[in-house]
Amino acid sequence: MTHQPDFTLGRRVMAMIEDLAQHTDEMGRLTRLYLSPAHRAAADTTLSLMREAGLRAHIDALGSVVGRLDSADPEAPALLIGSHIDSVVDAGRYDGTLGVVLGIVVAEALKAQGITPSCPIEIVAFGDEENVRFPTNLSTSYALAGRFDPAWLEGKDAEGVSLRDALIAFGGDPLGISALARDPARYRGYLEVHIEQGPQLEARNLPVGIVSAINGITRARARVIGEAGHAGTVPMTMRRDALAALAEMIGIVERASSTRTDTVATVGVAQVQPGAINVIPARVDFTLDARSPDDAVRHAMVQDIVTECEAAARRRGVSFAIEPFMESPATPMHRDLMMQLEMAVKGLGIEPLHLASGAGHDAVAMANLCPAAMLFVRCKGGVSHNPAESITLEDADIAARVLLDAVKRIAA
Amino acid sequence: MTHQPDFTLGRRVMAMIEDLAQHTDEMGRLTRLYLSPAHRAAADTTLSLMREAGLRAHIDALGSVVGRLDSADPEAPALLIGSHIDSVVDAGRYDGTLGVVLGIVVAEALKAQGITPSCPIEIVAFGDEENVRFPTNLSTSYALAGRFDPAWLEGKDAEGVSLRDALIAFGGDPLGISALARDPARYRGYLEVHIEQGPQLEARNLPVGIVSAINGITRARARVIGEAGHAGTVPMTMRRDALAALAEMIGIVERASSTRTDTVATVGVAQVQPGAINVIPARVDFTLDARSPDDAVRHAMVQDIVTECEAAARRRGVSFAIEPFMESPATPMHRDLMMQLEMAVKGLGIEPLHLASGAGHDAVAMANLCPAAMLFVRCKGGVSHNPAESITLEDADIAARVLLDAVKRIAA
Repeated sequence: MTHQPDFTLGRRVMAMIEDLAQHTDEMGRLTRLYLSPAHRAAADTTLSLMREAGLRAHIDALGSVVGRLDSADPEAPALLIGSHIDSVVDAGRYDGTLGVVLGIVVAEALKAQGITPSCPIEIVAFGDEENVRFPTNLSTSYALAGRFDPAWLEGKDAEGVSLRDALIAFGGDPLGISALARDPARYRGYLEVHIEQGPQLEARNLPVGIVSAINGITRARARVIGEAGHAGTVPMTMRRDALAALAEMIGIVERASSTRTDTVATVGVAQVQPGAINVIPARVDFTLDARSPDDAVRHAMVQDIVTECEAAARRRGVSFAIEPFMESPATPMHRDLMMQLEMAVKGLGIEPLHLASGAGHDAVAMANLCPAAMLFVRCKGGVSHNPAESITLEDADIAARVLLDAVKRIAA
Repeated sequence: MTHQPDFTLGRRVMAMIEDLAQHTDEMGRLTRLYLSPAHRAAADTTLSLMREAGLRAHIDALGSVVGRLDSADPEAPALLIGSHIDSVVDAGRYDGTLGVVLGIVVAEALKAQGITPSCPIEIVAFGDEENVRFPTNLSTSYALAGRFDPAWLEGKDAEGVSLRDALIAFGGDPLGISALARDPARYRGYLEVHIEQGPQLEARNLPVGIVSAINGITRARARVIGEAGHAGTVPMTMRRDALAALAEMIGIVERASSTRTDTVATVGVAQVQPGAINVIPARVDFTLDARSPDDAVRHAMVQDIVTECEAAARRRGVSFAIEPFMESPATPMHRDLMMQLEMAVKGLGIEPLHLASGAGHDAVAMANLCPAAMLFVRCKGGVSHNPAESITLEDADIAARVLLDAVKRIAA
């Protein structure tokens, strides 16, 4: 692996991330929800950073910050680079922000190196990726892809404030949203760098990896109803224990996902009623989250889980009901863009690992507009959505050099 | 089975239970906690019922109601008959009360039949069997057995009221407790009738059954700590999922109890953290309740559960800790008294089924004073600690006739 021993680009990335991490809605921890005052402040800082980097920049009707680096041929289809600057509650500082900052750093580096790209480069800082505040799903990136659903404006946050009212308070423009839709003919691709949020790169001792697909997701709520009873007086053979049934079902979920390639399935919520030490559980409400880079594989896995859980419920004399409430197809990344990233990774002497993204990203929405690809950056312990989120200066530098090289290849 | 088609004794039982069911601490449901105003009112009603039945009766220093039927030989060791009149929150009307009322009905019947027993008969309505209000354990019956722990007086209820202060407010006498201890030489036995609180009699179509032993109980709190992670990004092979580990442990608990005779084991509480659909569970706190009529069997079962759970935790890379906090030995019932109940049951043409009691009873405490035995009465669906608790008039009548016959045999 070659080194720039001073990590020039990495230091610039870390400095910008430090700047943006100051903007939070809560004292003592980082929380930056879509359209909040902290989001506005972070958008303003992003705007300044873009302008200092020599981009023509503005904040758009939905609060996304968009900066443009002009090209020799202003009519050439542009290359988009982006990610998001909103965060979860009590977040880390890299999730989203890293990809935005890397876009700006790459633009700076092109300027510094006196390179005029062959196509315009557009850097975007989206604002609604975490989907924490409003009942939306990637609204700011779907807007660019021409798929903003106007009903999203009526969605309310926990305080009852609608997205529409919050957008106006932020300084946005509900009437300007439809004009945000880009013409697909004018865009050649979308690149997003993001922390991995998982442990695979760390386990393989790799600083970066190339995303092959963003997993499709099925989410469901499920319920087992058995019969409460005295924990001392009902013989084991006469029980209809809802928690014991759930235990068997969790085993089914584990096996269905572990025996397939690249799939994961999780029971993250389990609420037991009545929940007393001496009462046989009568009811358990639980959730299922199942993901795969291949939709057919995911559907087969979920179907197997349901069928086997139904059989377990019948054997145990309990009722079982499951209701999927989210069904998000997989998003394969674009082969050509992946190849540009791969060549850039190889150029630094790094093994080009392909890995599926278990989490959703703005790239899911942007893939509706143009070819999309993602680069993952190793994060400590695979931890994200947590103040312990961490990347190294060296990895930040490597990510910047990979992105810069890929952009040069695409916009040569 | 022979019948008294008018169910004289059963009707008397049901009438007294109806009287006592009026006394509750909460409008609209039956809640009668130890030393509460409703307990005081129920004790006063019980006192009246005993006196109307011709017993010399009083309320003792701990609030238990004690009635005595004199015998031809006042020095002969007495036969005790009892149960409790306190209840759980939102209780049924039969749990405890049935056994007290049956004692009074049997005393009435002896009087009505002009029978003077050969030994004194003492009917007791205990007040602290459910152990809901204070951190005590059968305090009122242990007092008769000379095992009242004075530290119990300092125990506080949820409002911070000590048992001592509640007892004084009730009209009891903390200084009179030690004098409640009976001289074992003066008691020949203790009989208690109680609803089964389980489904075995109903399943076998039997109105009553003879308790062979009251199960010993181990209760423990346990904890599994794994590692939180993103439900999409951490591969199945790299997870340390606390809930998946618990699922395997519940299977271990089920197998350890199902493969032994007369044992039960229950995980009634399971609290999952952080409990989000897209986060791998990091921690589960749960409880174990394990019971057997044989202490050696119970100890072996709990040891097997702990050993196998530890092995599962090691395999899964999670930590497992378990802390027993209650260890109550089994109480075998007395052979001679069981035989008297068995002859009375057979006398009505009913198959004399022996069954272990999974729940604790005042008989556990009283077995420290004198030989003890219990008769179980079928209850609908095995349901107890619930307003749906129910027994039939015919079963109440059969229970009264069995108890009356057994008392005649013992105090002939």
